[in-house]
Amino acid sequence: MIATAAAETGEGTGDQPRRGRTGRGERGGAAARRAARTGGGPGEQLTYIRRVLKPFEVLDEEGLALIEANADTVLEEIGIEFRDDAEALALWKDAGADVRGERVHFPKGLCRTLLKTAPATFTQHARNPARSVEIGGNATVFAPVYGPPFVRDLEGNRRYATIEDFRNFVKLAYMAPSIHHSGGTVCEPVDVPVNKRHLDMVFAHMRYSDKPFMGSVTAPERAEDTVAMAKILFGEEFVDNNTVVINLINANSPMVFDETMLGAAKVYARANQACIVTPFILAGAMSPVTVAGTLTQVLAEVLAGAAFTQLVRPGAPVLFGTFASSISMQSGAPTFGTPEPSLVSYGAAQLARRAGLPFRTGGSLTGSKVADAQAAYESANTLNSTVLAGTNFVLHAAGWLEGGLVSSYEKFMMDIDQLGMQQRFCQPVDLSENGQAMDAIREVGPGSHYLGCSHTQANFQTAFYRSSIADNNSYEQWAAEGEKAAHQRANQLARQWLETYQAPPLDAGIEEGLVDFIARRKESMPDAFT
Amino acid sequence: MIATAAAETGEGTGDQPRRGRTGRGERGGAAARRAARTGGGPGEQLTYIRRVLKPFEVLDEEGLALIEANADTVLEEIGIEFRDDAEALALWKDAGADVRGERVHFPKGLCRTLLKTAPATFTQHARNPARSVEIGGNATVFAPVYGPPFVRDLEGNRRYATIEDFRNFVKLAYMAPSIHHSGGTVCEPVDVPVNKRHLDMVFAHMRYSDKPFMGSVTAPERAEDTVAMAKILFGEEFVDNNTVVINLINANSPMVFDETMLGAAKVYARANQACIVTPFILAGAMSPVTVAGTLTQVLAEVLAGAAFTQLVRPGAPVLFGTFASSISMQSGAPTFGTPEPSLVSYGAAQLARRAGLPFRTGGSLTGSKVADAQAAYESANTLNSTVLAGTNFVLHAAGWLEGGLVSSYEKFMMDIDQLGMQQRFCQPVDLSENGQAMDAIREVGPGSHYLGCSHTQANFQTAFYRSSIADNNSYEQWAAEGEKAAHQRANQLARQWLETYQAPPLDAGIEEGLVDFIARRKESMPDAFT
Repeated sequence: MIATAAAETGEGTGDQPRRGRTGRGERGGAAARRAARTGGGPGEQLTYIRRVLKPFEVLDEEGLALIEANADTVLEEIGIEFRDDAEALALWKDAGADVRGERVHFPKGLCRTLLKTAPATFTQHARNPARSVEIGGNATVFAPVYGPPFVRDLEGNRRYATIEDFRNFVKLAYMAPSIHHSGGTVCEPVDVPVNKRHLDMVFAHMRYSDKPFMGSVTAPERAEDTVAMAKILFGEEFVDNNTVVINLINANSPMVFDETMLGAAKVYARANQACIVTPFILAGAMSPVTVAGTLTQVLAEVLAGAAFTQLVRPGAPVLFGTFASSISMQSGAPTFGTPEPSLVSYGAAQLARRAGLPFRTGGSLTGSKVADAQAAYESANTLNSTVLAGTNFVLHAAGWLEGGLVSSYEKFMMDIDQLGMQQRFCQPVDLSENGQAMDAIREVGPGSHYLGCSHTQANFQTAFYRSSIADNNSYEQWAAEGEKAAHQRANQLARQWLETYQAPPLDAGIEEGLVDFIARRKESMPDAFT
Repeated sequence: MIATAAAETGEGTGDQPRRGRTGRGERGGAAARRAARTGGGPGEQLTYIRRVLKPFEVLDEEGLALIEANADTVLEEIGIEFRDDAEALALWKDAGADVRGERVHFPKGLCRTLLKTAPATFTQHARNPARSVEIGGNATVFAPVYGPPFVRDLEGNRRYATIEDFRNFVKLAYMAPSIHHSGGTVCEPVDVPVNKRHLDMVFAHMRYSDKPFMGSVTAPERAEDTVAMAKILFGEEFVDNNTVVINLINANSPMVFDETMLGAAKVYARANQACIVTPFILAGAMSPVTVAGTLTQVLAEVLAGAAFTQLVRPGAPVLFGTFASSISMQSGAPTFGTPEPSLVSYGAAQLARRAGLPFRTGGSLTGSKVADAQAAYESANTLNSTVLAGTNFVLHAAGWLEGGLVSSYEKFMMDIDQLGMQQRFCQPVDLSENGQAMDAIREVGPGSHYLGCSHTQANFQTAFYRSSIADNNSYEQWAAEGEKAAHQRANQLARQWLETYQAPPLDAGIEEGLVDFIARRKESMPDAFT
């Protein structure tokens, strides 16, 4: 584990640049190292994390084998329903499953055999090749919050999200050094017709960021639109041969996949694009109240859903996803940052490694209504277990508030600071001569201090992570500056960033092609709002 | 790792009750299990944690051996100063060290040879035997904040602490289920003369709590007073043969032990009481700016200081302590919750295990001035790494604010909720038939929900940790209740607890003996305020 700069340099991945992809954004070594140690800012981008530490594990071989055997029993005896999708049922029947109505029963080993074609790791390409990410192995990728219909805006109002908010979160994610991915539904722009908003959302990711992004999953034709737009951006042949979009395919737990998700999964898998098969679990409602029971059901659902993508197209990238929460047995509300979801995440990560699939869980989750101490405790607990579990793709890594109902600007800025800390934590301990610092210890000696010694002088700029949010000044100075709490400093920072945002360059012909496509698609159908 | 209730029952430890120790507080199994899953409340006490999971580690064998070799070099070539203590120097000379002035140089292996007499684990007895704690091995003990001269009171004022505040924090720690230890200087009662306040402080721990506690270290005679009072409480013979007080012996880093700390260490080691030898490190000031350099110096200082206790009395309990922080290279202020101190804590824990000593680090540390999101992020980051490192004794586990300058009532209540979550997390995953929940999965089946199923009904009361601070209600309900942030709920809870506090019973003769002793000692000297 002798340190090298390898984990930090991230030489980029995959094939060569092509139309629509810019060469911009290659990081110089010094800027990268500086960015790695600070909250950073626009332009100082970090590559995705390459972990050097072994994941923390909560189950031993005996426990894992027990859960795997139980999941096999669930798959065989209880089965999983694939609803309102005759094609899916036919595929399963052809594959040797026992299909009774919409209920599919899986002979022991069938799902795992099918999953042998799924890659353990793959590259999701960005239009800026320096922003492409590895998904799987020892890589960890942070993506923003996904799904909230509301925002907490910078005036402190809780209101429905708009396309303007959507673009703002894409811009902030583009600027954030420790966010490696532009995400998907960073908020739900409810001011745009429901059948057309996916066009504006996908375009925002393409135009206002150069990081990799997620596609629409709310209807098969919207998934088709996503793939069509990706072909305009990346070129048709490149999209046929590479993964450029990753997509959230939630199970309808317990033990159901519905028409909508199956439809989107089929479109993406056929196009060789990635699916994240995720049981969305509020334990006690969608799964048993116990950790082992939840893990059993999660494993069964993922094995069935992920194997389905391989029936559609062997070799299509697919992730083992787990959204773990529990519910308050008093109010029925979801709870976050508590011990049980952490145990589920750790255990699911172990099961995913054994299944040979990249893993998605966690984020910066909280049930708090505001960016207060509850939000921070819960988010930090979730994020620490997410990273230490060895999670490969971390959705909701920044901006999540109120159980996922709200995208918060302030929370987003606080969370990205935490993500920077996690990225620094995942670097190897420097055991070089400079890291050992024996010269410094000799130079300073007993009873003195290291503030001015030559080793400190040579290293202080990059020695410690520098938070963009924390106030570490004296009480007196903090008081003189207005006694600001963390969320107030985050508010200021979000405003500064949005004021200074500059869009990454995009080929004018490609932009025109995207705008034309969107206009034609919008014209082709009347507005729908439900 | 098949689950049993063993980790939770904590049958108590050590010898039989004696005068001054009460039999009160033995926990019923059901109450204990309930307490283990909730924020709990007065009376529902938890035994110290017995971890079942392997600690998370950040250094491999090669890295650890390198740091150990470097520490040996520091001990031999640079040496450690033992200042203003001729007896200490004489002891080292007799033991074979190379003493030049006040600088002690240690032949390779000397410190480790001396440390062979130090116990890897020991019991610290409480006057209530059910509250006695194991220190070492897979045990983790949470103790409150130590040292702040200021408090943030329940009216929101930041002011000097008083003996009334001191008693309040002792009472809250007594009531908190997830606090296993009464701690020491829970705040500095500056309204009591500096040469007498230790008497009131030690008495407060003895009278207002029945949990184990810490002794005075600010002067050798105050350490003697602590031991004398312990003998009144526990009986002289019991104290001679058992450890009843644990004491914080800070190194004056870099590489110095001073007269005050050496004086207290000698008193306690001679009395077979426990010392926590702790380099107090703000990296960049008291140690090199690098993780490996800091670990090297920490190891050298601890080996020298801990070995010294074995010179005084072979077999006296001693801990490997590490207080890890870094400093802002802009302002010089200490920073907390950042990646580098976490890496130091993880690494130091590994070094302590290899040295065969119980380990102390971490807590719920923050530089924030108020109980806001900064405080929570930083505390959660520190606490998560503290627990996952396998720390045995966790000082500052609750109430720490503003870099240790302030004891906060609100923060205390928020932190103990987090400690409860950590304690739940450390329990084994339940892999019993009930934990596997196959009956529940069969009963519910695809497309239904688990809210009303018989397995949920049978388990819901203890299934999930129930936070005492988090608000998980709907936005609408939260708004109707006044839009309270977490610290406001914590404030209410602290007031409720202090209103309902009831002192544990104490034998009237013992109380009289303690009061008499304190009165005589106070009369024997004039008040001093500096």
